[in-house]
Amino acid sequence: MSPARHRLDEFALIRKLWAPLARGFPDAYGLADDVAYVALEGGGVRAGEELVLKCDALVEGVHFLPDDPAELVAQKLLRVNLSDLAAKGARPIVYLLTLMLPASLDDAWLERFAAGLAADQNEFGILLAGGDTVATPGPLALSLAVVGAIPAGRRLLRAAAKAGDAVFVSGTIGDAALGLMARSGTLAGVTAEEGRFLSERYRLPRPRLSLGQRLRGLVHATMDISDGLIGDLEHIAEASGVAATIEVGSVPLSPAARAALTRDARLIESVLAGGDDYELLFTAPPRHHDALLALGRELGVPVTRVGTIASGSGVRALDPEGREIKLARTGYRHF
Amino acid sequence: MSPARHRLDEFALIRKLWAPLARGFPDAYGLADDVAYVALEGGGVRAGEELVLKCDALVEGVHFLPDDPAELVAQKLLRVNLSDLAAKGARPIVYLLTLMLPASLDDAWLERFAAGLAADQNEFGILLAGGDTVATPGPLALSLAVVGAIPAGRRLLRAAAKAGDAVFVSGTIGDAALGLMARSGTLAGVTAEEGRFLSERYRLPRPRLSLGQRLRGLVHATMDISDGLIGDLEHIAEASGVAATIEVGSVPLSPAARAALTRDARLIESVLAGGDDYELLFTAPPRHHDALLALGRELGVPVTRVGTIASGSGVRALDPEGREIKLARTGYRHF
Repeated sequence: MSPARHRLDEFALIRKLWAPLARGFPDAYGLADDVAYVALEGGGVRAGEELVLKCDALVEGVHFLPDDPAELVAQKLLRVNLSDLAAKGARPIVYLLTLMLPASLDDAWLERFAAGLAADQNEFGILLAGGDTVATPGPLALSLAVVGAIPAGRRLLRAAAKAGDAVFVSGTIGDAALGLMARSGTLAGVTAEEGRFLSERYRLPRPRLSLGQRLRGLVHATMDISDGLIGDLEHIAEASGVAATIEVGSVPLSPAARAALTRDARLIESVLAGGDDYELLFTAPPRHHDALLALGRELGVPVTRVGTIASGSGVRALDPEGREIKLARTGYRHF
Repeated sequence: MSPARHRLDEFALIRKLWAPLARGFPDAYGLADDVAYVALEGGGVRAGEELVLKCDALVEGVHFLPDDPAELVAQKLLRVNLSDLAAKGARPIVYLLTLMLPASLDDAWLERFAAGLAADQNEFGILLAGGDTVATPGPLALSLAVVGAIPAGRRLLRAAAKAGDAVFVSGTIGDAALGLMARSGTLAGVTAEEGRFLSERYRLPRPRLSLGQRLRGLVHATMDISDGLIGDLEHIAEASGVAATIEVGSVPLSPAARAALTRDARLIESVLAGGDDYELLFTAPPRHHDALLALGRELGVPVTRVGTIASGSGVRALDPEGREIKLARTGYRHF
């Protein structure tokens, strides 16, 4: 119960920074009531839909660095959650935002943070519905819960992979893990421009919402890659009771990642297990493979076949000669 | 991106502690998928309902103390959110839980925390739908988002107070603020038993869900008292464009609070402005006053008329002789 220490008080922050983000969602009452509403007839949800809920948190010093631009922190927070909606083929509706603010944080930082949210709200079609702001003696900590919608009963689950499916990913894999190394100056073999590209891929994921909403009917299991390709494929394999194989030579790489790998082939482990890709990972039966590749071309999002699903259990990574690659680690653990 | 430091890893914690809390809500898929679903037909929501969303956070050292029992921290986290649902007359459905865990926290603490949630889930009829667990170099920090439901369009708002209404509260006021003083040994004039009672009222609020769901049709403005009676009544007055008066002699006090006030009359300021009451505050037109008092008797929850609403602005507190009491502070500010 510490006394007021901030420059703008709680209510001024709501009026100045947060209420504008809720404009366009009248059921948030300008953040001037205690709760937000989601009307199910004629409101944010359409007839025949059901809701999808998700929350994800970021902590300074763990998930982002103190000198990361506030706009990018805001966008990463929103996008890691949107990436989960994308993987479930959901349409974003609203989000709730929890801010735990250290006394050292100034209003200018919060203004840039709000500007980052505003930009992404426009880009991804989501609005702020409510939240909570509290003081913390610790580092800046942020939690965000998103609400999305899908056609009722048309759920895209982890547990739906079937023997005979192929494994697909969107975009390129490993950029974020290498980007984190580039930021800390431990990545050799890339140009300054390639380093910036990789770093940006770490700091600003691109939720594949358009692709996700078009996967329904074409795929079996889906999820987004946050803990690393191998680790997340293990989640699908375990949930589905199947085995998975990754053909490492097929894993799509950006030119920057390819340059880094050319210099140090051992980086393949960071690419496959490093996490923070926020690309989509899905399995599909053979009859839909051509449609998926065409869909990727239509949307301008690379869609690449990287492996197969069979009966059994576990995930194996094979090199181009078909030999198994042993990985010391398979995925990011959160603690 | 720190390596694993915990005793149970993330997935073991989900299986052992969190998945059991989602049992009974099949649309959470045992917390083994990426998201939770809320089905709107035949699921958690009934026909003709709409949703109510709210999130609230607690940080160690700010909202609870390091030696507070884990069960009580869990229950306070859930209950401060349920209290908002109560104030809006909502039926709880599910919640999302974000845990930011310092490395020093042991599994035994988390087990007791989960036990506290389990007890309250039973008592208040809500289930865990999902969440996120991350590491923090700072203090333990917790955020919880609740989803409730109300009959569509029958919203209880802050902005609905009308001149001629009376102001009502549930329960007794000021216990939590005095309880916080009792815990720190700065409250005189109460017995050890009274001190324990007050301290418990601070640590374990009672969300007035049954009362809240019965207020619809009888009241105008509603909210719960978290920032202090005067401060929260200011929120209602400002949102509604009206003036409010509190008759301080009518404010319901517990025997323990009365004992403390007898010893030190200046404590009335803590009672009126101290916060953390988590009682309901509402305004109602004269024709429903008898029904509200009868409802309180039926439910065994004190319902007390404590003031009036008139045209104008601002909140005044009057002593039993009708003289205005000047308060140095009117409500808790979060930072």
